Amino acid sequence: MMRTILSADGSLTRRMVVEPGMCSGGSLIFGRIGDWTWEAVAEACRTNVHAARTAEGRPAYLSFYYYRVRGGKVVHPHGLTFGDELQVTSRVFQLGSQSVLTLHRLAPADLALGSAPLTPEEAYDRPHPDCLYAENFNRWIARTRPGSNQRLAEIAPLDFTYEHLPRLPNQYSPRSVGRAREAGTFCSEPPAGFTVTGPVETHEYTLDVVRDLNGAGLVYFAAYFSIFDTSLLRLWRSLGRDDERFLQRKVIDQKVGYFGNADPGAVFTITVRRWCSAANPEIELADMAMRDAGSGRLLAITAIELESA
Amino acid sequence: MMRTILSADGSLTRRMVVEPGMCSGGSLIFGRIGDWTWEAVAEACRTNVHAARTAEGRPAYLSFYYYRVRGGKVVHPHGLTFGDELQVTSRVFQLGSQSVLTLHRLAPADLALGSAPLTPEEAYDRPHPDCLYAENFNRWIARTRPGSNQRLAEIAPLDFTYEHLPRLPNQYSPRSVGRAREAGTFCSEPPAGFTVTGPVETHEYTLDVVRDLNGAGLVYFAAYFSIFDTSLLRLWRSLGRDDERFLQRKVIDQKVGYFGNADPGAVFTITVRRWCSAANPEIELADMAMRDAGSGRLLAITAIELESA
Repeated sequence: MMRTILSADGSLTRRMVVEPGMCSGGSLIFGRIGDWTWEAVAEACRTNVHAARTAEGRPAYLSFYYYRVRGGKVVHPHGLTFGDELQVTSRVFQLGSQSVLTLHRLAPADLALGSAPLTPEEAYDRPHPDCLYAENFNRWIARTRPGSNQRLAEIAPLDFTYEHLPRLPNQYSPRSVGRAREAGTFCSEPPAGFTVTGPVETHEYTLDVVRDLNGAGLVYFAAYFSIFDTSLLRLWRSLGRDDERFLQRKVIDQKVGYFGNADPGAVFTITVRRWCSAANPEIELADMAMRDAGSGRLLAITAIELESA
Repeated sequence: MMRTILSADGSLTRRMVVEPGMCSGGSLIFGRIGDWTWEAVAEACRTNVHAARTAEGRPAYLSFYYYRVRGGKVVHPHGLTFGDELQVTSRVFQLGSQSVLTLHRLAPADLALGSAPLTPEEAYDRPHPDCLYAENFNRWIARTRPGSNQRLAEIAPLDFTYEHLPRLPNQYSPRSVGRAREAGTFCSEPPAGFTVTGPVETHEYTLDVVRDLNGAGLVYFAAYFSIFDTSLLRLWRSLGRDDERFLQRKVIDQKVGYFGNADPGAVFTITVRRWCSAANPEIELADMAMRDAGSGRLLAITAIELESA
C-alpha cells in the first residue's frame, strides 16, 4: 500500500493509504513518523540505524531529543482515519557530528505540490495550510550501564556519515530546545496574546510496563505523547469537558523535548499549565513538564497548541 | 525498508527490517500484523478495505473476530527488537460470503524456506519451530446506529469478491470460536496436563480514551491485547513476580475472540484464571474474559499460553 521514491535532492516521497496501525486518538501516527525518520536517516546517511553499534560494540540508538508537529487544515495528528490517502515527503539535514534533523510533510494525496523540493523555508516560514509538518531532532545515544535507562551518553556509531547532508540554515536551528530544557518549559515566551488560565495542576503517572517501553526496553518516544495526552485528558475532564470533545481536538502545534528516560517501576509527576488565547477562546495551549517523582529529574516537556472545539 | 513480492499462488511476501513502531512489550506487532491482513485482503479480493461502504453507503469495517498467534523459538510476539530482519508471508482464504481468513508466517530473514507456498497444513500441523504464525479471521461489519459502537451488524461491501480465493480445508475452519463464545472461554477443553492454579481474579479496567480507540472511533483490535496484558501483569504482580519477568515472557500460543465493541466511558470487568502445566511448571496459561461491567455483555476472551521464565 506504499510507493517510495528517492529524489535527486535526497528527499524520500511515499504515497500511501492510511492504515489502522498509523491513526488513532493516540500516538500511533507519531510512532510511524518516527519510523520514517529512521528510514530517511538510514537512506541518507547509509547507516544501519536499526542495529547501530558504538566503537566499543555497544548498541547505539538514534534517540528522539526534540519532536515538533504542526497540524494543517486537512492533515492533522488526531484527524487521520484509515482510507485517507497521503503523500509524505521526508528530508534529512546535518546538525553537528552526533545529531540529525529530519523534516516531513504529510500532504493529501491529491494536493498539487509541484516539483520543488521540501525546503526548511517552506516548513518553517511558508507551510502549506492543508499539510502536517513534522520536525525530528535525533541524537545518537548509548547506555552507560547495561540494563539501566538512566544517564544515557551521547555517542555516534562508527559508520555514521553526515558531512554530505544539506545544512539547515542557521535561523532554523533548534537551539531553543536547550533553553526550554533549562527553563523546564517551552512557554518562557508564550505565543503573543496567550495568558495563563486557572491553577497549575499536578498529576501522577506510573510508567505503564505493558505499553510504554519499546523493543529495546527504553521508554518509547511515542509513549511520551500518550502520557502527556493522559494528563491533558485529566485536565479537560476537570474543566467539565466530555471525552468526545477530547477525541475531536485539533493539534495546531506540539513540541516535545526528551531529556531523560526511565526504568520499569518509575513514577512521574506531571505539571500542567493552561494558556488561553485572548483573541480566539477556542485556541489554547497546554504546557507540561514530566519529572521523576523520586528525584525530581526533568524527563520531558511539551507544549500543545490546539483548537479545543 | 520493505520489499513486497506477490506470488502466483496469491501469497504476499515482504522482506523487512523491524522498526521501533512494530515491536515492544505491547501490542504494536499485533497491530502491524493486522495491517498486513488488510493489505493482503485488499490485494487478494480487489476490495478497498480501507474505505469500504455498504450498499446503503455506510462505512463497512473488516473487523477482527478471531486472532491467533503462535510464537516460535526465534520469532515470538514480545521477543522482536528493531534491527531484526524478517521475511513475512501472507495468504488469504475464503470463509463464507462475509468473512475471510488470513495466515501470516514471520520467519527470520535468513531461514531457508524453499519455494513451497504457505499452506494451512504447514501453519496448523507442521509449523516451522523458529517462526511466528498468525491467523486472522475477519468479518465485515457496520454500525447500526451512527456514533454507537454497540450492536454492530454483519454486512459486506458491494465490491467484496471471495469466490476465487483458495478454500480452507474443513478441518482447519475456526468453528471452535463460536463454541468458545458460548462458553465464555477458550479453555472448556484446556490443553492436556494443565490444571487450574489459584483462585479466579477479577479486575476492573476503564476504557482508555487516549490509547484504546482506532481512527474510526472503535475500540482498536490491538488494544484488546494490551488490556488483557494489563490484567496479566496484575495477576503476575499478585504472584510476587517482578516486571522484568513479565517483559521477558514468551508467548507460545495466544487466541483472542472479539465479540463486542464499546463506547468512551465504558468500564470492563476482566476475569482471569491461571492454568499450569503439570509436566513443565514454566509453561502456564492465562484464560481471561472481558465483560461490560454494566450489562455483563461478553466483549472478548483470550487464552495465552506462555513460558513464564
